[in-house]
Amino acid sequence: MTLMHEMIRTHPEHSASQDLADAIQLISECAQVCTMCADSCLGEPDVANLVACIRLDLDCASICRTTSEIVARQTQTPRSLVRAQLQACIEACSMCAEECEMHAEHMGHCRVCAETCRRCEQACRDLLSSLS
Amino acid sequence: MTLMHEMIRTHPEHSASQDLADAIQLISECAQVCTMCADSCLGEPDVANLVACIRLDLDCASICRTTSEIVARQTQTPRSLVRAQLQACIEACSMCAEECEMHAEHMGHCRVCAETCRRCEQACRDLLSSLS
Amino acid sequence: MTLMHEMIRTHPEHSASQDLADAIQLISECAQVCTMCADSCLGEPDVANLVACIRLDLDCASICRTTSEIVARQTQTPRSLVRAQLQACIEACSMCAEECEMHAEHMGHCRVCAETCRRCEQACRDLLSSLS
Amino acid sequence: MTLMHEMIRTHPEHSASQDLADAIQLISECAQVCTMCADSCLGEPDVANLVACIRLDLDCASICRTTSEIVARQTQTPRSLVRAQLQACIEACSMCAEECEMHAEHMGHCRVCAETCRRCEQACRDLLSSLS
Repeated sequence: MTLMHEMIRTHPEHSASQDLADAIQLISECAQVCTMCADSCLGEPDVANLVACIRLDLDCASICRTTSEIVARQTQTPRSLVRAQLQACIEACSMCAEECEMHAEHMGHCRVCAETCRRCEQACRDLLSSLS
Repeated sequence: MTLMHEMIRTHPEHSASQDLADAIQLISECAQVCTMCADSCLGEPDVANLVACIRLDLDCASICRTTSEIVARQTQTPRSLVRAQLQACIEACSMCAEECEMHAEHMGHCRVCAETCRRCEQACRDLLSSLS
Repeated sequence: MTLMHEMIRTHPEHSASQDLADAIQLISECAQVCTMCADSCLGEPDVANLVACIRLDLDCASICRTTSEIVARQTQTPRSLVRAQLQACIEACSMCAEECEMHAEHMGHCRVCAETCRRCEQACRDLLSSLS
Repeated sequence: MTLMHEMIRTHPEHSASQDLADAIQLISECAQVCTMCADSCLGEPDVANLVACIRLDLDCASICRTTSEIVARQTQTPRSLVRAQLQACIEACSMCAEECEMHAEHMGHCRVCAETCRRCEQACRDLLSSLS
C-alpha cells in the first residue's frame, strides 16, 4: 500500500477510493518531473532552443502542484472549483506533452516528461468524469 | 511605480501593460489574504463552524499563487493554458468570496478576504477578455 | 525504476545518484501526506483540539514542497542555499512528527504522517551530510 | 492601510504589528519579482549566459513564497520552524542578489530583482531578531 492509499484510507470521511490515491500520486509526481525537466533543459548546451519547453515545464509544474493539493483534500469538497482546476491541469499537461514530444528523440528527460504528462492528463480526465 | 510595474517594464519583450502589472499584484495579494484568512479562522474559538471556509481559503490561496506565477510570465506565453488557469482562479475566488461573505459581519478577516476575492475575480475576468 | 530515477538519470550533468532520487521522492510525498493530514484533521469532529496539528501540517507541507523542488534541481546547484533549506525542512519535519505522534494512537492519518515526517527528516539529514 | 495590515489587524489573536505586515508584503513581492526575473532572463537573447541566474531566481522565488506563507500565520506559531525558514530565506535572497547584481548594469529586471532581494534579506533578518 502506498502512502497516498494509507492517507486516503485513514481520512475521517472514508469516501475515497484507490483510483483517487493513484491519481493524487501521479499528479504530484508529474509536478516533480516537470520541475526536473525544466532544470535539465536549463543544463543543456542548446538551452537557447529550449525556451518554450522550459516555460511550459514551469507552468505545468506549478499547475500540477496546486492540482495535487486540491484533489487530495476530501473535506467539504467544492466540486466546481475542483473541476475547473482539473481542466487547467488537463490543458497544461497536454501542451507540455506536445512540446516535450518534439525533443523526446534527443533528450531522455523530455521523453520521460512527455510520457508522464500524457498519463497525468488521462488521470485528470478520468477524475473529471467521476466528478460530473 | 510598484515593483510589479518595474518588472513588467524591464521585460525583454516589452509587451506588457500597467493593467497586467496591477492584476499580477492583486492575484498575488489575494493568495496571501486567503492564506491569512484560513489561519485566522483556525485561531477563532468557533473553528468547528468554519471548516468549509478554511477549506476554500486554502484552495483559493493555492490557485491564486499558481495563477499569479503563470500570468506574470511573458516569454512564449501559452495562451490556452493561461486562459484555463484564469478560469480556475475565477471559480475559486467566486466560491471563496461567497463563503466568506456569510461570515463577514462577525469576522473582519472574512470581510477583507471576501472583498479581495471579488476584486481578484474581476481582475481575472478582465485579463481573460484581453486574451481572447 | 521510478520516475524520479529516470529523471535524475537523464539529466545532462549525470552527477546524481539513486539515493538522491529516493530522497526527492520521499520529500515530495511528505509534502502531500502533510497536506492530507491537515485536511483529515479539519474533517475530524474534534477539530478544535487539532489546531496546532493543522498549523504544523500546513507549514511542513509548504516547506517540503519547496525543498523537494530545490533538491531536485541539479544545474549550477547553490550549495549553501540547499543546505539552509534542508535545515528548515529537518526542523519542520521534526516538529510536525512530534505533534502528530501525540495523536497517532487515535487517528490513523496522524500516525502515517508522523512516520513519514520522521523518514523525511532522516533523508534530509543524510542529504545534508552528503553536501558538506 | 494595505491588505496585509487589514488582515493582521483582524486576526483573532491581535498580536501582530505593522512591521510584520510590511515584511509579509515584501517577502511575497520578492517571490513574484524573482519569478518574473527568471522569466525575463529566459526571454533574453543571451539566455545561455544567464543559466545560474535563472536557477537562483527559481529557488529564491520558491523559498520566498513558502516563507511569506509561514510568516503570515499567527495561530500557534512554531518559533523554531519559523526561524529556520527565515534563515533559508536570508541565504536565498543574499545569493540571488549577489548573482543579479552582476547583470544589473545591462538588464533592468536583474537590477530591480537584486534590490528587492537585498530589502527582503534585511526584512527577514529583522524578523529573525524580533523572534529571538
